[in-house]
Amino acid sequence: MSRQAKDDLVFKALAHPRRRAMLDELKDRPCTTGMLCARFADMDRCTVMQHLKVLEEADLIIARREGRERWNHLNALPIKAISDRWISQYAAHAVSILDRLKGDLDGTVSSDA
Amino acid sequence: MSRQAKDDLVFKALAHPRRRAMLDELKDRPCTTGMLCARFADMDRCTVMQHLKVLEEADLIIARREGRERWNHLNALPIKAISDRWISQYAAHAVSILDRLKGDLDGTVSSDA
Repeated sequence: MSRQAKDDLVFKALAHPRRRAMLDELKDRPCTTGMLCARFADMDRCTVMQHLKVLEEADLIIARREGRERWNHLNALPIKAISDRWISQYAAHAVSILDRLKGDLDGTVSSDA
Repeated sequence: MSRQAKDDLVFKALAHPRRRAMLDELKDRPCTTGMLCARFADMDRCTVMQHLKVLEEADLIIARREGRERWNHLNALPIKAISDRWISQYAAHAVSILDRLKGDLDGTVSSDA
């Protein structure tokens, strides 16, 4: 698969807010599909599984089967590739400083308001 | 604007391969709109400007007018936000090691082939 085809899968997967929310849920620990269905109870199991399939095809989650359960793990490598693509190693420090500065300024503005 | 609405603009902007290619072009230095039109000569000026508008609305580029020219600068903060969202500070080091390991393994496999 070409790099652009892989990127298309990643950005298509990230384009949906529910899929981003699912990755948020997996950030701190893996979850079984049942745990995710309980967490996103407003979606039926089939919809949750379709979203998981899109995330898995984009390599954003890695699924491991243990007995009757499927554990879904966040794979951070495609996320790291996004940041590496547009933030060079040398620029990363400057971007961090800018980000802190922006945070400080936002804080100043909101405390002034 | 809610965080989700802002995120939607960012991921919508990144979903198009030509817009990602434009950000690639802006990674190392700002470009005028004319320079980008010359670089992406297979698109007409109007299409290039529409893509720039989507990127600007997502805050992925910042435009500065100088005389008759519009200079487009890459803004890395929304990119940093993506990586911060799913890669915690503590995990970043582990992800870097994994990424290097994967690179080494890919190198081994291709040199074995």
